[in-house]
Amino acid sequence: MDSITLASIGEDALVRKLTASLSQGADVVLGPGHDCAAVECGSRKWLRLLKTDCIIEGIHFLPDTDPARIGWKALARAVSDIAAAGGEPLHALVTLAASPDQSLAKIEGIYTGLARAAAEFGVSIVGGDTARAPAGVFISIAIDGRVRRERLATRSGGRPGDVVFVTGKLGGSIRGKHLDFYPRLAEAAWLTSKFQIRAMMDLSDGLGADLPRLADASGVGFEINPAALPLNDACSPADGITNGEDYELLFAVRSDDAEKLQVKWTKRFPYVPLSRIGRLLEPSMGRTPLALGFLHFSDCNSAEPTS
Amino acid sequence: MDSITLASIGEDALVRKLTASLSQGADVVLGPGHDCAAVECGSRKWLRLLKTDCIIEGIHFLPDTDPARIGWKALARAVSDIAAAGGEPLHALVTLAASPDQSLAKIEGIYTGLARAAAEFGVSIVGGDTARAPAGVFISIAIDGRVRRERLATRSGGRPGDVVFVTGKLGGSIRGKHLDFYPRLAEAAWLTSKFQIRAMMDLSDGLGADLPRLADASGVGFEINPAALPLNDACSPADGITNGEDYELLFAVRSDDAEKLQVKWTKRFPYVPLSRIGRLLEPSMGRTPLALGFLHFSDCNSAEPTS
Repeated sequence: MDSITLASIGEDALVRKLTASLSQGADVVLGPGHDCAAVECGSRKWLRLLKTDCIIEGIHFLPDTDPARIGWKALARAVSDIAAAGGEPLHALVTLAASPDQSLAKIEGIYTGLARAAAEFGVSIVGGDTARAPAGVFISIAIDGRVRRERLATRSGGRPGDVVFVTGKLGGSIRGKHLDFYPRLAEAAWLTSKFQIRAMMDLSDGLGADLPRLADASGVGFEINPAALPLNDACSPADGITNGEDYELLFAVRSDDAEKLQVKWTKRFPYVPLSRIGRLLEPSMGRTPLALGFLHFSDCNSAEPTS
Repeated sequence: MDSITLASIGEDALVRKLTASLSQGADVVLGPGHDCAAVECGSRKWLRLLKTDCIIEGIHFLPDTDPARIGWKALARAVSDIAAAGGEPLHALVTLAASPDQSLAKIEGIYTGLARAAAEFGVSIVGGDTARAPAGVFISIAIDGRVRRERLATRSGGRPGDVVFVTGKLGGSIRGKHLDFYPRLAEAAWLTSKFQIRAMMDLSDGLGADLPRLADASGVGFEINPAALPLNDACSPADGITNGEDYELLFAVRSDDAEKLQVKWTKRFPYVPLSRIGRLLEPSMGRTPLALGFLHFSDCNSAEPTS
């Protein structure tokens, strides 16, 4: 028993195992296993969204990364999760653990980036916690937000025949985008207000890891047209599938809505690509083989940090 | 500038420096610098409380600590903060970063303890995040709760002449209590419902560190009678002042309320000591010198973990 390590189990199976037996109160609409939790908040109109997300030196950024970009990234990732649920972010708490030899200037720089992102996305940083870490810097963001009940987007509502879209371009985030990306908050709010978004998530571990998660949650198969993948400069389709940290929206809509959505999108967001990359299938029809994206803990990944 | 490290600045000054320039939305009732943040939630009756708290291997527990006790401690600390604000905890999110060589059994054991505490205190664990850490185990808990508007307790309402009380007994937590303590949720709810609690906090870093924080927030001085300190077995008054992790309530009430409170307390909580340990003073009247409790980052502390 003790010989099973985290490296041998992989992140998704770990989370399922850990959260399977947790009991939930009657006010919990979405619990563990979703991008955001959603809970009742005494309102007919709104649900409250709750989410935490952490980044770690050596994994998500390097010791010499510009501290302001580290702070921006930490908060922007959490905002991206709220966006993907169709919500608007409200408050954040910052947990910052650092070794005592870290420079004050670095930690202040991280806060500069956090404050910049908070101002940009209308988030109040209302508190947090600092602690001493044995080494490096660790930042966990807890964020809350709200979503109109009927606009709540999850991974699990996709149905066979739905068309799969992705925003922006994929791949190569490691060259810098992962530190400066702008979460698709406005786009997700527009999508959920104008269309029935059957399933949505943000791409954090790469399409090859994240699309199967959406398909698993929805109980469907999928087919992807690699030639339709929108790619950043100097990226191959394989890069677009396996590189993590795109922070683009991956979503599925009824096939009847697909064409209208694409036309309206182009008017509303003329500078943000929207690509129809495939469709969801009956589970028995299988899945386009995709190389895996970045999976935490997994032995399948190299030991290279993603930043 | 770069030569200033976290070790040379200390935790309180660091937090003040980092959070001073953060701007807050109009819905924020209590922001950074308080035990919990409090925000409007669209209700006349309730405010929402938000808090994060983290524990780290080597600082708050040891590699061979019983994992279930680690999990209990992680959640109980956060519940204690909600309690100290006069609130009731509702939902928690768990951020768990661990090195890939950690055993699955250990992480499952931590979740067993988390689930036990969640069930005990009526908290739904609605999600979280797992990530790969370079070494050890790091657990951050984000918790929310609610408090009746008129019962919200903070550190900052103490006035000269108020009587200072502490629940339970102090000192020696390192011998085991820090892993098994039972947050004073029922006691704090009773106190805030029956009396005007002018200032309150939970003792996490020791009376010697925490009482000055309450006094700073309230803009007052204080005097403490060391002979009145309730001490755990084999603890000196110095231990009661300097040892951290008591997780008892420290609070101040009007002197007119003190006697009645003590009588009613003894009827309601006959097995929980309540000790009148001193009073708040005009700031010009100074403070009883107290050796410092445990301060993160500070060079004043030895490098020994507190567990």
